[in-house]
Amino acid sequence: MFVMSSPSGAGKTTLSRRLLADDPQITLSVSATTRPPRAGEVDGRDYFFVSQTRFQAMVHGHELLEYATVFDNRYGTPRAPVEAALAAGRDVLFDIDWQGTQQLQQTDAASDLVRIFILPPNLAELERRLIARNTDHAEVIAARMARACDEIRHWGEYDYVLLNEDVETCLAELKAILLAERLRRRRQLGLADFVRAMLGEAV
Amino acid sequence: MFVMSSPSGAGKTTLSRRLLADDPQITLSVSATTRPPRAGEVDGRDYFFVSQTRFQAMVHGHELLEYATVFDNRYGTPRAPVEAALAAGRDVLFDIDWQGTQQLQQTDAASDLVRIFILPPNLAELERRLIARNTDHAEVIAARMARACDEIRHWGEYDYVLLNEDVETCLAELKAILLAERLRRRRQLGLADFVRAMLGEAV
Repeated sequence: MFVMSSPSGAGKTTLSRRLLADDPQITLSVSATTRPPRAGEVDGRDYFFVSQTRFQAMVHGHELLEYATVFDNRYGTPRAPVEAALAAGRDVLFDIDWQGTQQLQQTDAASDLVRIFILPPNLAELERRLIARNTDHAEVIAARMARACDEIRHWGEYDYVLLNEDVETCLAELKAILLAERLRRRRQLGLADFVRAMLGEAV
Repeated sequence: MFVMSSPSGAGKTTLSRRLLADDPQITLSVSATTRPPRAGEVDGRDYFFVSQTRFQAMVHGHELLEYATVFDNRYGTPRAPVEAALAAGRDVLFDIDWQGTQQLQQTDAASDLVRIFILPPNLAELERRLIARNTDHAEVIAARMARACDEIRHWGEYDYVLLNEDVETCLAELKAILLAERLRRRRQLGLADFVRAMLGEAV
């Protein structure tokens, strides 16, 4: 379970799309949200777009692994697709904020969690990216900048911190982290049997 | 502090040489030993070749971070070069066995230790490599095989386990582990100041 968090505008969406395209072993956890779709966003790919009523039902039905409210919109991680992917031996990528990360950290899955924080090189660059996105008004951008700073203040709660100055470098670093974490002894479940067989002992 | 252990003949020496050649940030910790040099081995590069008396003096003078006896020969890690390299902000690679790894694990440096175990694909391949080395007699090879099995039984004490079926793949995995470990939040010492400066707070 790989968690990627970052302030909005730090390049996380580009990084996660590239990672998913290059790495067949990983599945994106698609969040549910009550906010309306932006131009180009596809239901079921970018988010599951749901009503407030449906979201509330998911909360009450324990259908969400974590959920949080941001700017009056609600965001949550549907539990079933994550559990199905993990059961099939796949890795799951979570594109969630510090609130969601803290909640996942409090579940049984905490020991399996790898938490990665993406920092922008500076706040000017981050603001430039938010403006270039061109979907938001000035006061919305100011509010998003304040929220970005709030997100950044939680960098200390993550296992890895990457500085996204260059997307190719940052992507290579992400891939190195994924590969390394997969090579951890405790994640290689067949290893004990493999070694016993090699040593000619009873499996 | 990166520790690489493996049974003799699993390709560790090739891997560490390639790694050192490709990665300017890492320094090899050269062990001291009382065993005589093999053909082609250079004092100060492959080992510091020392007498039993000198080795014993190093032990008594607390000049060794760890030491062990293998086949009547003594091996140890001189403390001073390691401390100098770490103080200069360099990473240090230790090519030591499970006994040395256990001792490093009991020092103050344990929290900084990254322990990597290299497995051969199978024992036949390992024996083939030992024979191909062509420096040892049959009974010596048998003793080395027994010792290799003993080493392999300690795989469970390592953070990462790599299977060396193909040296290029294994080298890429090693590099990924090094890069990932360097990206760990707690190893990026300037990060707190960097983030404070970014957020415009007092450094």
